[in-house]
Amino acid sequence: MGCGGSVFSGTTQGIDRSVVEQIVRQVALEYLGRPANGVSPAPELTVLASARHMHICREDMDILFGKGSELTVYKDLYQVGNFAANEKVTIIGPRSRLISNLRILGPMRKQSQIELAFTDAISLGIDAPVRLSGNIADTPGAIIMGPKGSLELKQGIIRAAIHVHMNPAEAALFGVKQGDLMKLKVGGPAGITFDKVHVRIDPTSRLNVHMDTDEANACGLHLTKDIELIK
Amino acid sequence: MGCGGSVFSGTTQGIDRSVVEQIVRQVALEYLGRPANGVSPAPELTVLASARHMHICREDMDILFGKGSELTVYKDLYQVGNFAANEKVTIIGPRSRLISNLRILGPMRKQSQIELAFTDAISLGIDAPVRLSGNIADTPGAIIMGPKGSLELKQGIIRAAIHVHMNPAEAALFGVKQGDLMKLKVGGPAGITFDKVHVRIDPTSRLNVHMDTDEANACGLHLTKDIELIK
Repeated sequence: MGCGGSVFSGTTQGIDRSVVEQIVRQVALEYLGRPANGVSPAPELTVLASARHMHICREDMDILFGKGSELTVYKDLYQVGNFAANEKVTIIGPRSRLISNLRILGPMRKQSQIELAFTDAISLGIDAPVRLSGNIADTPGAIIMGPKGSLELKQGIIRAAIHVHMNPAEAALFGVKQGDLMKLKVGGPAGITFDKVHVRIDPTSRLNVHMDTDEANACGLHLTKDIELIK
Repeated sequence: MGCGGSVFSGTTQGIDRSVVEQIVRQVALEYLGRPANGVSPAPELTVLASARHMHICREDMDILFGKGSELTVYKDLYQVGNFAANEKVTIIGPRSRLISNLRILGPMRKQSQIELAFTDAISLGIDAPVRLSGNIADTPGAIIMGPKGSLELKQGIIRAAIHVHMNPAEAALFGVKQGDLMKLKVGGPAGITFDKVHVRIDPTSRLNVHMDTDEANACGLHLTKDIELIK
């Protein structure tokens, strides 16, 4: 085998491609905590890792993908009505670093928002705050490019806080209310307890913890099914 | 601003460069837990994030950097005698993905070993097991390239388990022994408790928790000094 860097001229380590595969790998994994005796009232717990993604508003969709364009379904997500779209954008940070193939999750929302892991944000040079989805006041922005245009997103880049979706019946079972914090204890060789899992209650929700790729990789989520949600 | 992917032909998202900066950023951070009253016997706790790196043996050093070559000091590390070297290699995974500028930590060891975060390992396509440093039996390998040669590392690629170095006096203070597990509770907006912090005792050690970049990014280590090591 040859030596020296010149062997690799023209070959690059593509962070984009690897992360796309990471999305496929991790979003596809579902960790089910079933009651041991089969009769416990405890609902099944699904924990999913979200790779970085964008939520988009109508106005930004028009600019990036063309007037009147619509998101198209690449894959349905666990929460009913939500989907990973075929549409992807490129985000450009303040130091001219970029991440391409940033997937959009549908449906469209009232305001655009980009959720990055700290690994992504540090790579881009963006100081992303930890926020719950939708709470984007005074967050940083970036340049976003789509196939039909580009725009300067003024704000909306966050590191999403780990959270659990549930319906009111499940909330009653756990004895928690909207905005409470729960713990998620993940076993396995890299055991971690997430101490601040935000409770988000909606009648349409399915019980489901969302963490990001940094969190999933830190706890080795792919290595264990020993996971417990605790009040 | 122009639109479309062609604008970026020839421009790549360099994971290597960003991670090098991440090394500098995170290794430089020290989180000190000082006793509130200034008279407590509790030793100061330093928590450091280790970016991916290699430990190298004499034989592999000869192949990669030339017969009789030596590591040179780029920066001293927290544990006395350990240092980040100027020397770097490229690691090539089974799917022809690569990570360049993988820094070597000195001094040389009896066997080569590469410590990756899961984010790195997934990117390379390597199924790295969680191991304590030095415990590399039946771990995967990879092709390693240096400026003077390349080799096939047969084994030695791990995701290092989070661990705490301490001296015997500190171990006595905590009431722990070699191989015990402790907890590290990190506060802040992304609060996490690491439930399996391996205790490593050595007379030359300074009290110091080592985590990797996935773990540091998951808990937002850069956002808080509210950190506690618990038996």
